Amino acid sequence: MKKLKTKPTSELRRDPVSGDWILLAPLRSRRHKFEGREKVKLAKSRCPFENPAKFGNFPPVLVYQKEDGKDWFLQVIPNKYPAVGPDGHGSIYKDGLYQTKAGTGFHEIVIFRDHDRCLAEYNAKEMERVVSAYRERYLSLANNKFVEYISIFHNHGKEAGSTVSHPHSQILALPIIPPDVSHSISGSRRYFHERKKCIHCEMLRQEIKENKRIIYENKDIVVVSPFTSRVNFEVRIFPKKHSAYFEKISNQALASFADASQVILSRIFKKLKDPAFNFFIHTAPTIKNQDYNHYHWHMEILPKFEITGSIELGTGLNIISVAPEMAAKILK
Amino acid sequence: MKKLKTKPTSELRRDPVSGDWILLAPLRSRRHKFEGREKVKLAKSRCPFENPAKFGNFPPVLVYQKEDGKDWFLQVIPNKYPAVGPDGHGSIYKDGLYQTKAGTGFHEIVIFRDHDRCLAEYNAKEMERVVSAYRERYLSLANNKFVEYISIFHNHGKEAGSTVSHPHSQILALPIIPPDVSHSISGSRRYFHERKKCIHCEMLRQEIKENKRIIYENKDIVVVSPFTSRVNFEVRIFPKKHSAYFEKISNQALASFADASQVILSRIFKKLKDPAFNFFIHTAPTIKNQDYNHYHWHMEILPKFEITGSIELGTGLNIISVAPEMAAKILK
Repeated sequence: MKKLKTKPTSELRRDPVSGDWILLAPLRSRRHKFEGREKVKLAKSRCPFENPAKFGNFPPVLVYQKEDGKDWFLQVIPNKYPAVGPDGHGSIYKDGLYQTKAGTGFHEIVIFRDHDRCLAEYNAKEMERVVSAYRERYLSLANNKFVEYISIFHNHGKEAGSTVSHPHSQILALPIIPPDVSHSISGSRRYFHERKKCIHCEMLRQEIKENKRIIYENKDIVVVSPFTSRVNFEVRIFPKKHSAYFEKISNQALASFADASQVILSRIFKKLKDPAFNFFIHTAPTIKNQDYNHYHWHMEILPKFEITGSIELGTGLNIISVAPEMAAKILK
Repeated sequence: MKKLKTKPTSELRRDPVSGDWILLAPLRSRRHKFEGREKVKLAKSRCPFENPAKFGNFPPVLVYQKEDGKDWFLQVIPNKYPAVGPDGHGSIYKDGLYQTKAGTGFHEIVIFRDHDRCLAEYNAKEMERVVSAYRERYLSLANNKFVEYISIFHNHGKEAGSTVSHPHSQILALPIIPPDVSHSISGSRRYFHERKKCIHCEMLRQEIKENKRIIYENKDIVVVSPFTSRVNFEVRIFPKKHSAYFEKISNQALASFADASQVILSRIFKKLKDPAFNFFIHTAPTIKNQDYNHYHWHMEILPKFEITGSIELGTGLNIISVAPEMAAKILK
């Protein structure tokens, strides 16, 4: 294959799971600055999560106490402003070309006790309790017969869509498989049908061999800068052992996953100067009579440095200015 | 089919082209405010687009004079900070599972003369010249053999990703078909193969019959609030006559398209208090030996009121709080 004589302006990279391209345009990096997220000051007296019951929230469905037993560590409450609710019976309505379905489901908030201390400042032991709470609520919500997918996610900072600065995660149990998850699962299913292999396991094998984008590893977990990062400093956390289902994680792997999450969140916080970020878990749907064993659950962390521009909005072509290989070096 | 006794919290709607769901959650609308975009003051003396040549920009590839001939009306220049450049020869490189391609292409800026007057304040005649310039550059760039797709788009306001407040559009000629366009084309191709009909023509027929989401119509053009709007007050502008290719638009249809664009941009500006927005044209790729006649070109306008939250980022499930039927009433 011919090699280019001059270095091209930018490089397109294709995601082997989705088939989607991203654009790496390093020239534009002069625009990249680490300015940290906007610090929002919310007085404890006006914070709806400082004393949830007092602010008219629903009673908690789960509470973990602090180790010393003198205060709560986290509590999970139903969202006062839910995106989905308990009404509905799972039917699809048709009107010509259009389909609708009632937004039946559950929308919960995982509130952390500390008002000013974010997850990136937690230690591994605390993070383990956070992930345990995610798993406990996941297992409980998955029993509902209309639930097809459970999304666990966390917004850090106003720029990442967080409307209350008191640290909290969200759990959304939906009666449909949401678009990004659906595309990711289609890609992994297609590959499995063609090769009888998990595409994520194959990618991890290539990543470990090449060792250009690995940020961190422990016994059970690998942390990488994805080859087709959609934003600068995107990070993904994978279990090494193939598993489609987050909720089936063993206690030991959960501790390893918490360790890896703590390490990478703390590095993003320190090395990238506390940017806003979103993280979420991608896992198999909860539909009982479908086989999703081809899938490989993982967590994605998307730091938020810039407003999404119109190239992204108009075409879905994500543009990054920092090469994932460079991002891995910085976060290593 | 059973009817619900109580009104559900929210409603899921499925896009017939992409198959993707969106969530309409009106309860969350108490959070919706019309605050207008952030007004960025950029002195003319420091504006890179007020006198492009003086600021070290490349010479224009196209200039339209004002009617009185005393000043320029618009000029198109190569972007000083391009996302893609002229180097490369269209080959795909493979490394295990991963594919890369040089970012070969063209990135141009369409600069409008008036520093403080935005497109939403243009009259129909001026808008016609804007769209003519888009078409002229499109036809010229489409001749390049590595170009597979040409994206024409416009960012209005800082919140919509605009980094220079002086009004300008962008034209990006790419050596790949970008993700959103690729998904949209796959959906339309699938429908055409099954039914031998254009899904967009079918949707327009249903929209005109139901008349719940039509905002504006003229001889050649329909403007609608899409049934599956991804943001509040999303708008799409369709040619009534089936055509896959924007660049083949007749002069008469171009005048009608400019009229419709002017009407809707002006209403968004006035009725929604000058929000930031992105607009872009979705049209068939420029690949010569492929048949895209199943596609139906159109323009999409996405007003920007809120930061994208983690539900959207984590799952691709877009959430709106204003029903498209209500948005159509307000914009009518």
